[in-house]
Amino acid sequence: MARPTPLSGFPEWLPEGRIVEQHVLDVLRRTFELHGFAGIETRAVEPLDQLLRKGETSKEVYVLSRLQEDPQGAPAERGDRLGLHFDLTVPFARYVLENAGRLAFPFRRYQIQKVWRGERPQDGRFREFVQADIDVVGAGELPYHYEVELPLVMAEALGALREIGLPPVRILVNNRKVAEGFYRGLGLEDVEAVLRSIDKLDKIGAGAVAELLVEEAGASAEQARACLELAGISGDDEGVVDRVRALAAVHGVTHELLDTGLEELAALVRAASGRAPGVVVADLKIARGLDYYTGSVYETVLVGHEQLGSICSGGRYDTLASDGSTTYPGVGLSVGVSRLVSRLVGGGLVRATRAVPTAVLVAVADEADRDRSDAVAAALRARGISTEVAPSAAKFGKQIRHADRRGIPFVWFPGQRGDDGAVASDEVKDIRSGDQVPAEASTWEPPTADLHPRVVPAEA
Amino acid sequence: MARPTPLSGFPEWLPEGRIVEQHVLDVLRRTFELHGFAGIETRAVEPLDQLLRKGETSKEVYVLSRLQEDPQGAPAERGDRLGLHFDLTVPFARYVLENAGRLAFPFRRYQIQKVWRGERPQDGRFREFVQADIDVVGAGELPYHYEVELPLVMAEALGALREIGLPPVRILVNNRKVAEGFYRGLGLEDVEAVLRSIDKLDKIGAGAVAELLVEEAGASAEQARACLELAGISGDDEGVVDRVRALAAVHGVTHELLDTGLEELAALVRAASGRAPGVVVADLKIARGLDYYTGSVYETVLVGHEQLGSICSGGRYDTLASDGSTTYPGVGLSVGVSRLVSRLVGGGLVRATRAVPTAVLVAVADEADRDRSDAVAAALRARGISTEVAPSAAKFGKQIRHADRRGIPFVWFPGQRGDDGAVASDEVKDIRSGDQVPAEASTWEPPTADLHPRVVPAEA
Repeated sequence: MARPTPLSGFPEWLPEGRIVEQHVLDVLRRTFELHGFAGIETRAVEPLDQLLRKGETSKEVYVLSRLQEDPQGAPAERGDRLGLHFDLTVPFARYVLENAGRLAFPFRRYQIQKVWRGERPQDGRFREFVQADIDVVGAGELPYHYEVELPLVMAEALGALREIGLPPVRILVNNRKVAEGFYRGLGLEDVEAVLRSIDKLDKIGAGAVAELLVEEAGASAEQARACLELAGISGDDEGVVDRVRALAAVHGVTHELLDTGLEELAALVRAASGRAPGVVVADLKIARGLDYYTGSVYETVLVGHEQLGSICSGGRYDTLASDGSTTYPGVGLSVGVSRLVSRLVGGGLVRATRAVPTAVLVAVADEADRDRSDAVAAALRARGISTEVAPSAAKFGKQIRHADRRGIPFVWFPGQRGDDGAVASDEVKDIRSGDQVPAEASTWEPPTADLHPRVVPAEA
Repeated sequence: MARPTPLSGFPEWLPEGRIVEQHVLDVLRRTFELHGFAGIETRAVEPLDQLLRKGETSKEVYVLSRLQEDPQGAPAERGDRLGLHFDLTVPFARYVLENAGRLAFPFRRYQIQKVWRGERPQDGRFREFVQADIDVVGAGELPYHYEVELPLVMAEALGALREIGLPPVRILVNNRKVAEGFYRGLGLEDVEAVLRSIDKLDKIGAGAVAELLVEEAGASAEQARACLELAGISGDDEGVVDRVRALAAVHGVTHELLDTGLEELAALVRAASGRAPGVVVADLKIARGLDYYTGSVYETVLVGHEQLGSICSGGRYDTLASDGSTTYPGVGLSVGVSRLVSRLVGGGLVRATRAVPTAVLVAVADEADRDRSDAVAAALRARGISTEVAPSAAKFGKQIRHADRRGIPFVWFPGQRGDDGAVASDEVKDIRSGDQVPAEASTWEPPTADLHPRVVPAEA
């Protein structure tokens, strides 16, 4: 078999990169559990008709067929066909409906799994990638305070990654009710058309967006200017809300939705400025997602790496799921873990202190004595020290090189029987410094920093 | 949307079951890392031609297509088509070849991932399930001692699950060289045919197998009897090897492969009887897998649940992978985690002490005071105590019931401001005993047993 080549869009890591990814996943999991989110996993597949309920995503779905399916048989009904999930929201909504009678609401869950999108891989987009989601879903109702809580949980989770070298994050928030209330109060009824235009602001600039608003959203020049002025407002304190109110007053805009939305936005920036100062920024030009979210909407950028796009997005749905009699509103955010890790590892921002879990390699003086090395290893492992035994009774220099190539910091030498029949003490060598000292497997401990591979900023 | 129903063959757990599964995965991972195995993950897909290199598995593969693929276009070449991996061995072999220049050999890796098989779900077989594999792979050569080490690592990993109620395991071992050497020494050259017949022993009995050996493997009645006598030998000490040698002497069987195989088998049972007494049993009737493994072969049963079949299997390959110039021999075992967890949870053998990570629910006396409850929660979390805040300022009885339904053991009441303006001390209630005591969020700790949900035997 010739040497295989990677598949574009399907990232894989060498062991050292996997240590970074695993660390990120462990930190996210720990933070989510600290906040009382229960972990679930859903199957990788959903019926195709469920995956295609939102038409826009249809082209991204991988459809499954069994290799031995009878090609002469009747084509499978769409409802019988299975596709790989392209996010964790659709499966979660299905899981909630399927198990509603056995879950306690509001239900807080986290879910860390791979998702697949059959897109052409480009611009750092993957076809297979890991997402880490948190959501709270209620039965019938879900208080607004969860829209404040969830981005702060994510801020804490991502903040916990700063010690390994993740740049600080900024969570940009907007609120569908503010935008919709402002546009309607201004007399613009085609809210989706306004949002589509505003969404192009960063790409095409204010002048072109103003033209779009006139052409496609039926805005007058003054209405267009008001929309652009709203989009220009941002900040991390309640002054933002005051500026929106002032702008509304200038344009004579009043609308119940606007008032509700501004109260909500004020509560969010107020709580955030206390609990995660500087992290949450209200940014009224955020329009992506406002067409399907119904309240708060979140995007998250790495400060200094804004061109990477949002690494964590989400928002509030009034109807995450519905079974006809009960509606389940939800709010949640999703971290694109693969994109993040790809940036951390590929961008050389972080490294693992070694590529293996092993702290100690026990040398073997003679294959006939392998039992003694095995016994040393067992004694070290019994106290939580990751240990392996040398692959062969090669010269000690070669065994030390074996450890060195893997970054294993310590090599252990079981004491040899001397000519007088007495067995010498075991010794352990720190192969970085060359220091070698007598040691007993039942008591010796490596420095805490060497016990496990650690993930650290690349310059450390 | 109507209430969805589960998909047969795609198991999913409620949060409590997921805690059990996660615990099993954590224990496996911890044990593997303690033994110096590096974790890797491979993508879920492989090129179809790679998946189909062993013809026998072809009917199990799920093939992917993109929903929007042009049906008028040229049909994709087989080499361009992707399928979901059906085990972790094929992807690992590909990963080794792809990254050979960047890995240090012998390379020890563990891999815990889902695999998919498009089989008709029956007899407890799943279409999607989690496997946990360990393998050691060498470049060019791989010493036999790894064939001794790896089943003992698995014995330790599965043994660590006994404290949650997993029954003891028995690892049944055989060796391709013993079987092949014995059959060839006996004058039977169609080794595969003999193995296929012996493999049916449990199903059809000795008489029918003797007939098969005559009809399909060209054996005489005496050769057939000798094969059955070999298959009847089992035991957990070196006496097994003596009995095989005695049988060979009776039938005048000598063969170099037999001698090598018996030395290897002896080394395995000798090491195992010291390090995991009673766990490893040589069983000369184990024939499954001997057709593709080249040395040791392993199967694992739960004692008392043998009808469940093997929960952990593997063996030695002389050629796990090859790039034409270098051959990579390997030895490994794979645990069927989903089958195990399904038995533990579905069979009512284990339970989680609660279904959520949360140890403390902080009550909310008034929505206007939610900030104070949030601050208590933050102080508890800062010391590693999983905490959530009540969803609403309902009557305290309702908030306590909210905790009770989730199994959250403690409810925290922030002190109220009295008529005299003084703020009373916070109090925390153990809702199981009803005990309520004054407490400070900066110092209070729950009993260790309540800090995290624990997985325990069901009767505990």
